[in-house]
Amino acid sequence: MNEHYSYFYGLMNISIIGTGNLAFHFSEIFMSNIDINLIEIFGRKKTLPKEFNNSINYCNCLTKLKEADFYIICVSDDYIKKISKKITTKRNNIVLHCSGSTKMDVLSDHLSHGVFYPIQTFSKEKKISFKEIPIAIESNSDRNLKKIRKLGSLLSEKVLIASSNQRLAIHVSAVFANNFTNYMRVIADEILKSNSIDTNILNPLTVETTEKLKFLNSKNAQTGPAIRNDIKTIKKHLHLLKGSNHFKIYETISKEITKLNNEL
Amino acid sequence: MNEHYSYFYGLMNISIIGTGNLAFHFSEIFMSNIDINLIEIFGRKKTLPKEFNNSINYCNCLTKLKEADFYIICVSDDYIKKISKKITTKRNNIVLHCSGSTKMDVLSDHLSHGVFYPIQTFSKEKKISFKEIPIAIESNSDRNLKKIRKLGSLLSEKVLIASSNQRLAIHVSAVFANNFTNYMRVIADEILKSNSIDTNILNPLTVETTEKLKFLNSKNAQTGPAIRNDIKTIKKHLHLLKGSNHFKIYETISKEITKLNNEL
Repeated sequence: MNEHYSYFYGLMNISIIGTGNLAFHFSEIFMSNIDINLIEIFGRKKTLPKEFNNSINYCNCLTKLKEADFYIICVSDDYIKKISKKITTKRNNIVLHCSGSTKMDVLSDHLSHGVFYPIQTFSKEKKISFKEIPIAIESNSDRNLKKIRKLGSLLSEKVLIASSNQRLAIHVSAVFANNFTNYMRVIADEILKSNSIDTNILNPLTVETTEKLKFLNSKNAQTGPAIRNDIKTIKKHLHLLKGSNHFKIYETISKEITKLNNEL
Repeated sequence: MNEHYSYFYGLMNISIIGTGNLAFHFSEIFMSNIDINLIEIFGRKKTLPKEFNNSINYCNCLTKLKEADFYIICVSDDYIKKISKKITTKRNNIVLHCSGSTKMDVLSDHLSHGVFYPIQTFSKEKKISFKEIPIAIESNSDRNLKKIRKLGSLLSEKVLIASSNQRLAIHVSAVFANNFTNYMRVIADEILKSNSIDTNILNPLTVETTEKLKFLNSKNAQTGPAIRNDIKTIKKHLHLLKGSNHFKIYETISKEITKLNNEL
């Protein structure tokens, strides 16, 4: 009973370690959730950054952290291990990191540990609804996994269990679906700008590209000169890109899409 | 007066040449527009494909086409020139093609010709609102350009004049923003599948990636290991992709994003 004291009141006591984008969004959702008590946020700065709700307790000394059911580490991958080692825990305090590409066992100094990885991109300027965001979880024990799952279900409708290897695969796929997709638009915008064309003209196309994926799988949604093996058009495009950094990317991706064509 | 006879009734008389996706969407929007009279559709098949409204006149003999203010050629790039040559026109009949990467002058056999290129991806299964779709136009004379602009403004709020070279640049940029973006999702889905993970978990991320571009320009929206120059994570990802077709694409794009980092 004593071990579960915080659940006695029906609240999960949580500390957030970090003050970046993810820490910010967690703080917002935790503050608004009646089953969660956000105990405090740890950061290296003297005071809590001003975008955070100023009623949140702030602590800039890791050794002075209050006891919590969950310590959620939201710092850069390189610092997770180092910072986690400074947190003092008992069996009942679960230390979590939120990284897609960091193995769970960097936290193995703690008897109870796990991973809580929301599959989404976060920026402080933009509100986000957690309900739809899949959260990939992992833990060192079934008992902890249940607790982490419970925490996940308070935020999202889509909690999934994934091993460290599966999580790395999710992270790589997210790089393609988010970072590289955005970069495709960076290139598109550069081409337009260098031809004195307003970059906003691509917005409806960008929206429709995503919309289509709601009712078609990505392979069936593939269109364009490469999937049609339309060499003439590809040559015209490569001619236009000659001498630019984008030539190689166009060539490499088109080659791969052409292979997809042969598969179908 | 006689020359403009069709405008006398306030209607633009249009013939569509082709029965593909674009022809289908044009037919739908033309049928619903009170200023446009869709005279007929030309196709090679014996009858009009059944997805089209069956009240539309259909013709499968190019030499028997009725006179129209606009002949809108919606066929594959390779056939535009050949098909256009078979259409008999007077000065007052404007022949248009809708291709992003085909020069206007393939239509120069006709006294009045031009380009009408909607910057969007079309599939028959999905309804689309033309109002938002930018249409890039070009013409061989100012007089015709005005008429084409008028036609464009009946469909869309965003009609822009673009030279053949600018249009090619728009088309290349659309390949990046649409085809290559979709292919990034194809890769992401393949990685997930080969790790036994439901591909739907990426949907919220894909939506948010596009959403962000409504309030951030693409360069500022760039995130991920490459823009942070996070070599450790990039190496983990490349290790996971080793031996797959996606290795080279990951490597090539990451290298280019890293350059962007140095620019900023």
